[in-house]
Amino acid sequence: MAFPSRVRIVEVGPRDGLQNEAAQVPTGIRLELIDRLGEAGLRTIEAGSFVSPRWVPQMTDTADLVRRLKRRPGVAYPVLVPNEKGLDAALAAGADEIAVFAAASQAFSRKNINCSVEESLARFAPVLERALANGIRVRGYVSCVLGCPYQGDVAVADVVRVAGELTAMGCYEISLGDTIGVGTPLAARRLVDAVSASIPLQHVAVHFHDTYGQALANIFACLERGVSVVDSSIGGLGGCPYAKGATGNVATEDVVYMLQGMGVETGVSLDRLIETSLFIARALGRAPRSHLAMARTAG
Amino acid sequence: MAFPSRVRIVEVGPRDGLQNEAAQVPTGIRLELIDRLGEAGLRTIEAGSFVSPRWVPQMTDTADLVRRLKRRPGVAYPVLVPNEKGLDAALAAGADEIAVFAAASQAFSRKNINCSVEESLARFAPVLERALANGIRVRGYVSCVLGCPYQGDVAVADVVRVAGELTAMGCYEISLGDTIGVGTPLAARRLVDAVSASIPLQHVAVHFHDTYGQALANIFACLERGVSVVDSSIGGLGGCPYAKGATGNVATEDVVYMLQGMGVETGVSLDRLIETSLFIARALGRAPRSHLAMARTAG
Repeated sequence: MAFPSRVRIVEVGPRDGLQNEAAQVPTGIRLELIDRLGEAGLRTIEAGSFVSPRWVPQMTDTADLVRRLKRRPGVAYPVLVPNEKGLDAALAAGADEIAVFAAASQAFSRKNINCSVEESLARFAPVLERALANGIRVRGYVSCVLGCPYQGDVAVADVVRVAGELTAMGCYEISLGDTIGVGTPLAARRLVDAVSASIPLQHVAVHFHDTYGQALANIFACLERGVSVVDSSIGGLGGCPYAKGATGNVATEDVVYMLQGMGVETGVSLDRLIETSLFIARALGRAPRSHLAMARTAG
Repeated sequence: MAFPSRVRIVEVGPRDGLQNEAAQVPTGIRLELIDRLGEAGLRTIEAGSFVSPRWVPQMTDTADLVRRLKRRPGVAYPVLVPNEKGLDAALAAGADEIAVFAAASQAFSRKNINCSVEESLARFAPVLERALANGIRVRGYVSCVLGCPYQGDVAVADVVRVAGELTAMGCYEISLGDTIGVGTPLAARRLVDAVSASIPLQHVAVHFHDTYGQALANIFACLERGVSVVDSSIGGLGGCPYAKGATGNVATEDVVYMLQGMGVETGVSLDRLIETSLFIARALGRAPRSHLAMARTAG
């Protein structure tokens, strides 16, 4: 596949990002963050999570938040849903898109959601069925695609299998997540090659963490294979839950800078992204974490 | 050219890095840093500079340092030389290799060394001639290859011309420096393509800054063209002189992590690099700046 002329950025900061920040952000700030991201031109903005508040206290207000969303035409606001109960809550709140998640690693699945990968997929089958019957699109996340904090190596075949099953259940897109950021470009590319041999490449998104600084190099290597959907988090929100203080999600503004520099369209305003990055850093009471924000505020 | 199976890292931390740090480091610490880098497996370690102490006070002790170097077999310790007077000092101290530098940008050359690019090259001609006559190898740096803090855009043709002239004068290797870190992977690769159309690719090194987070992606894009020499700075020493507080030189340990992950040999021990990175951060009294050091010390 050719290098893409256009890339869709999936902004995960308001959910994946904020749920891994120490500080809890008020609903009003989360709504303003989401609005600013839409204003900046992002067209998929992960808004919240219906995972139990016991596990993710930062997302307790998601039902309220989804009801109050100032929806922009053409923008999707997916919410994370762990099971049928979560789906009920998402439907009741009026969510327009949901996301489900499974690990490529058995050890991670057991530690994280206390069941095997197969059990987690089985649990999602009725969620997908009912969501699709209600006209709700479903995005699928596969975590630990290039390594696991508990079992170490993860077989490419395991990623291919989970991505294939989520696709077969009806996910319109599969996001391949390097949850602990250990992957390097040739491994990332081999993974994309393997996955796209069994599901269409245009349904494959990549989700890299910058813990070891590899995210942009990995993204570039995957763009060269024609990948055209990239997950990222404004200001690098989220950090790394497995190495406190380390970098986590790649920052949206760093990704957009690279894409713009290569003439790849994103429809996103870099200046507005940086303003938004500084806005949420202020709300969290800490310095911004992206290279772009640091370079622009330095001097 | 094929993806390289082996890459030579040119470690620039003890010179390019430390000369851009606010704190001055005692000669003994610089000697220990250089020794630790050699112990880690690096085979080219830029040791110091004979540029006037008026401009670079951090390098005042270079003559003393070169005399006291504990030389390891097979390791080169180049020193930066600005003119014939600098060469005299380097020869007197017993330097085994020197480096000369020119900008691809006229505006940068005038601001930085107060003469045109052509004048700077003419000034280096007798330096090269005498160095080579004394059996001293000469490395050439070209700065501002993907952008200039004063003139903005820099023409690829200007980089090609300066790289070609330095090669014609006898430099064994040309390091292409993105001094302000603005380049992105496709631009970096186009530059390598243009330069290697006029000088042999094996004489081309790349020198990226991480100011905008692009360094590893740029390096990867150039490796794909067969580039096999990469400049980097332990712990990201140096910062960015044009944006105080921002990231500068790409960190050696981040580069080596990427290369190891891709099965590219470097001959360098990542664990020893990280120890060395923590050692020099302690000596400077600040936190380490590389992704690897941050991830390894987080928790």
